[in-house]
Amino acid sequence: MKIEVCLTPDLIHQIDLTGKISVVIDIFRATSCMVAGLSNGIRSIQPVATVEECTELGKQGLVMAGERGGKKIDSFDIGNSPFEYMQDHLIDKDVATTTTNGTLAISKSSDASEVLIGSFLNLSSTVDYLKSQKKNIVLFCAGWKGTVNLEDTLFAGACLEKMQGITSTTDSALIAKSLYTHHKDDLLSVAKHSSHAERLGQFGVTEDISYCMKQDLHPIVVSLQGRRLVKM
Amino acid sequence: MKIEVCLTPDLIHQIDLTGKISVVIDIFRATSCMVAGLSNGIRSIQPVATVEECTELGKQGLVMAGERGGKKIDSFDIGNSPFEYMQDHLIDKDVATTTTNGTLAISKSSDASEVLIGSFLNLSSTVDYLKSQKKNIVLFCAGWKGTVNLEDTLFAGACLEKMQGITSTTDSALIAKSLYTHHKDDLLSVAKHSSHAERLGQFGVTEDISYCMKQDLHPIVVSLQGRRLVKM
Repeated sequence: MKIEVCLTPDLIHQIDLTGKISVVIDIFRATSCMVAGLSNGIRSIQPVATVEECTELGKQGLVMAGERGGKKIDSFDIGNSPFEYMQDHLIDKDVATTTTNGTLAISKSSDASEVLIGSFLNLSSTVDYLKSQKKNIVLFCAGWKGTVNLEDTLFAGACLEKMQGITSTTDSALIAKSLYTHHKDDLLSVAKHSSHAERLGQFGVTEDISYCMKQDLHPIVVSLQGRRLVKM
Repeated sequence: MKIEVCLTPDLIHQIDLTGKISVVIDIFRATSCMVAGLSNGIRSIQPVATVEECTELGKQGLVMAGERGGKKIDSFDIGNSPFEYMQDHLIDKDVATTTTNGTLAISKSSDASEVLIGSFLNLSSTVDYLKSQKKNIVLFCAGWKGTVNLEDTLFAGACLEKMQGITSTTDSALIAKSLYTHHKDDLLSVAKHSSHAERLGQFGVTEDISYCMKQDLHPIVVSLQGRRLVKM
């Protein structure tokens, strides 16, 4: 087993995903929302690239979710907050979602043998599943509009620390692991200094930030089956 | 003053270099060689993209230096070791050099108002110069064939720590600074675990690694003037 880390979708061309498990990471907030929602009873979540595709699926009865630039899309049912994804009226519903970064990383994972959704909310269960599969792994950080971000890199580092004993030879992995190791006792305060958290803070969603940094609150594994994300 | 960090040439398209100082960083070993050589009396160093261009300049009397994949080019005068650059017979000579990563980062800095060469060997003198210029700065890590590397990121972090008080809002900068802060007392042992150091170790150049991690051995500022790098 080998683990690679891709720090942003703008660097994914350097990695051959064939036969590997891609763990898509968009801590603030797409993958945290997906995990919270599916854990709370949403039946499936279909990630799509554009607002138009999402609207089209809305006409077919799916709940429309998503954001652009961190803000809810006006005509949509819900935005991109884990609390919105955990509303009782969404239980057993199918959701379509489009987000700035997470959706892109999922679509760029099409060569992988399996796509998982990673967040602090399901960290340990995801790592346990990865260990059981004995496949090569790519920890794929969604970043922010192509740039490297702090919170996704922290999560990649958390996975690496919990996968101890499994080889990683890339410097991106060494950097991610070092970042996590040195901040694991004050993760939230570090994450609050990320540019993404500061951006979201302007929209008054500081509660989302705290929630997304909680570990193992939803011990599920989320996998892309066909075009839809489901709880395994 | 604002400082940005570019972790690899594959991400430089995200940064507008116009009007900024680009500090090119290729610790193992291009920028360390340049600083060591110019400090030791080489008159100028002209970085070029290809072996052919270097050979052409060799015919015009320049010393031909460079590597591909970490190894000296057969027909060249010297390879890419700081010790080769410090030989007495090179004093007052003009050198042409081509390397895998450093040369590329220099050529991709063409929009910058000034291009400096950064290495641990001239860390403090470079930082002092940057502080005096009051311009926006890009710390441009050359990486390895487009991938992020540990030692260049460590150096970017070292610059950031020494530039305290100057704003950096990017997460790449936060990550680089964290990496340096947590390893500054054992820089060499960390750098030895980088993939680049392990690659070079196979060629028997472990002494180069130790030398390139020494701080402030050559307190000079190296700047690109026209097509040639010179000591300021």
